[in-house]
Order: sequence, then C-alpha cells, then structure tokens
Amino acid sequence: MEIHPIAVFRSPFKSKFGVPRQSGLVEDLQGRIVLLDAYADSESLRGLDDFDYLWLLWGFSANRHQSATFQPTVRPPRLGGNERMGVFATRSPYRPNGLGLSSVRILAVEGTEIVVAGADLMDGTPIYDIKPYIPFADCHPDACGGWIEDAPWHELDVDFPEQLQAEVPAGKLPGLTEVLRQDPRRAGSKHEPTRVYHLAYAGLDVAFTVDGDTLHVVCVS
Amino acid sequence: MEIHPIAVFRSPFKSKFGVPRQSGLVEDLQGRIVLLDAYADSESLRGLDDFDYLWLLWGFSANRHQSATFQPTVRPPRLGGNERMGVFATRSPYRPNGLGLSSVRILAVEGTEIVVAGADLMDGTPIYDIKPYIPFADCHPDACGGWIEDAPWHELDVDFPEQLQAEVPAGKLPGLTEVLRQDPRRAGSKHEPTRVYHLAYAGLDVAFTVDGDTLHVVCVS
Repeated sequence: MEIHPIAVFRSPFKSKFGVPRQSGLVEDLQGRIVLLDAYADSESLRGLDDFDYLWLLWGFSANRHQSATFQPTVRPPRLGGNERMGVFATRSPYRPNGLGLSSVRILAVEGTEIVVAGADLMDGTPIYDIKPYIPFADCHPDACGGWIEDAPWHELDVDFPEQLQAEVPAGKLPGLTEVLRQDPRRAGSKHEPTRVYHLAYAGLDVAFTVDGDTLHVVCVS
Repeated sequence: MEIHPIAVFRSPFKSKFGVPRQSGLVEDLQGRIVLLDAYADSESLRGLDDFDYLWLLWGFSANRHQSATFQPTVRPPRLGGNERMGVFATRSPYRPNGLGLSSVRILAVEGTEIVVAGADLMDGTPIYDIKPYIPFADCHPDACGGWIEDAPWHELDVDFPEQLQAEVPAGKLPGLTEVLRQDPRRAGSKHEPTRVYHLAYAGLDVAFTVDGDTLHVVCVS
C-alpha cells in the first residue's frame, strides 16, 4: 500500500535529540501541523476545533538504519536499553512499517494549520493522517500499561541559572525546562559529568552537563 | 511511503454489512489477529499480554470507490448522512490514506495470534501495525468528543425469538444481539417495514426486518 504525506509538522526540535519519547510527556511543548498544498483546504478541518485532542499518524523519518530483515524484538530506552521486548509490545520507531501514533492537544485551528501541544514529533516530520480523538472509543481509563507502567521513569533535577533563562523567549521556557527534566540523553548513558551536550531547541543552542541526577545548563546561545 | 501488511484480522463478519462503526461499541465481539508468515515470530509479541488494550493500524480494504481527487468533506452516518464534516474531523474510511485506527481489548496472546474483543474490522482486513495501548500517553478522560458527542446514537430494540436464538452458538449470541441493536443498516435508511435484510455473521445468515425502532429477527440459517 502506497501512502502519501498530507501534512508536515513544525516543531522547536530541528533534530531528534531531545524530542520527548512519548506524546503528552511535555504538555507545554507547542507545535504546528501544516497541511500540504494538495490538501490545504480549510474545509477538511471543519468541526475539528470542537475536539480537545487529535491523533497523528506519522512517519519515523529520522530513522537512519532501518533493518532490511524483520527484527522481532527491540530494547526500549525506558528499560535502560538492555532488556528486550517484542516490537509489537513497544512504541519503538524500529518496526516493520515506520508509522508513529501520537495524540496531541488541539490549541487552535487556524485556516489550514493546527496549533497543538504535547507532541513527540521533530520538525519536518511527514504526517499521513489526522483523526479526531473520540473518548468513547479511544479512552480506557482502567487499562493496564504493561511493562511500561512497571518501569519507573527517571527524571532529572534541572539547574538552570536565571541569567541563562533570560536568553530563552518566555513562551518557550516551560517546554524547554520540561524537555531537560526528561533527560534527552541516550538510554543507559554513562556517568560523564564533564561531557557537554548540545540541544537544538527553537533556534537556540542549549549546552548542558549531567552529574548524577542533576542537569546543569551551562550556556544558551 | 510503501507499507506492507504484518497481520490479517479474523472476524465473524465476512462482509462490511453489520461491522460496528467504531471500536468498543460491541464489547462482546471477538476476533483474532494472525501474524503473517514473514512476521510470525512469537518473540515479536513478548510482553504484550501484560497490556489490557492494543492499537491496530489497518487498511480500509473494503472501500470500493476511493476518489482519485481529494474530497475535503464527508457525510458521517452518525449525523444521518446529510451533514458534512471535514474529513480530518471524522474517522470516515474515505480519506487520503485509507488507514483505520482502532483500540481493542486483549483477551489472550496465543503463539503468533492475539485474541481480541471490541474490534470494528471485517474478516480479512490487512493490519499494518500493532502497538500497545499506553494509558499515560493515549488516555484523556476529560477530552471532549466534538460533534460526535452531540449526535445521539440511535439504537434499536431487538426482538429475537427464542427458537431463533437457539440456532446461534451460545458464545456468539451476545455479540450478534449487540450488533443488531446498533442498527446495521445504512445511515438515513427509509422506513421500509417489510424489507428483509441479511447479515452474514459467524457463518450464519441472519434475516431481519426493521419497523420503526424495533428490529425483528425473522430467520437464522
């Protein structure tokens, strides 16, 4: 089956580094869905602004080395990158068809664009479908989240000096701080307190180090 | 982007007629996800049985006349088939990329097959991805369901004589009754009390008439 992008995502993240590992993890993160020319008819969004959430079906476009043969298991970051799970029991990007699924909050429908919050998509991600979130079909409050619920997510304390915070546009600061708290590093990173990491966020270069459970922002430019 | 089926769905519905219009509407309806040969490795499902629900990304394979040009609006059955909504504000099968999205309850993982309940897929539907349902990312209990919540769903009273019920295997009866209650007819059907409809369900032919708000089962064979 041949599918074609109907929209593109615009996000503060120009690269994969730092993008939240799941939708909803960083509620303050805003992005924009832009319908592509062939689908840029505001009529196609009629009625969508009455919903609170929508689904995005999108492509894992940043996957560099997709395996040619089927890999039945993957090593989820949430399990530290060591333990294996069945690929269909994970939301890993490394799967037979590189399709992602994310629910995001609708902030505004503006012509042929939709402003959303809480997405886990990087800038330029191709979107193949937009569907409304229907609570009676999509919401299962008592559902058990399997191994994901049993694996406590490790968050960092963020040391972000005020003079560096002043370099960030006020509207972008809560999202950035939450992204840092989620630990943008690779799963199972070694203890390297002197290593400087760089996060490209909303046109800024945010440099930081991590010492144990604390992330120190050292430069914003 | 080219995508390939990884599984096929096995359901009591051999045709589209009677298939619930959304997942979860008929909880008693059981089906089976069967991994295709190239993906038939039980390791790919490792860990899935600890989840309560999973997502299916599947193809609207029963669409006969997919339009070659983009149709920005559709007429949802729930609105009686007259009012138009933006295609991206509906779950209509008539959309640019013919991909369906359904959450179903996991009853059992058996080797390379998964027994599920509540699906809205007909028999033979190609499945492109299976993902676990993750409550913290996928569940939004306070979400507003837009126009779908405002459109009351019309259910029928089902008159199912006991001697005809006896023709149905006991395990299939609750699902069948609920399917009939949901009104399998086309949206905005005319009042035709003498017309006999036929539902193909689990190898049975279920004949019924509809008079006003009451559905009468007239023959099961």
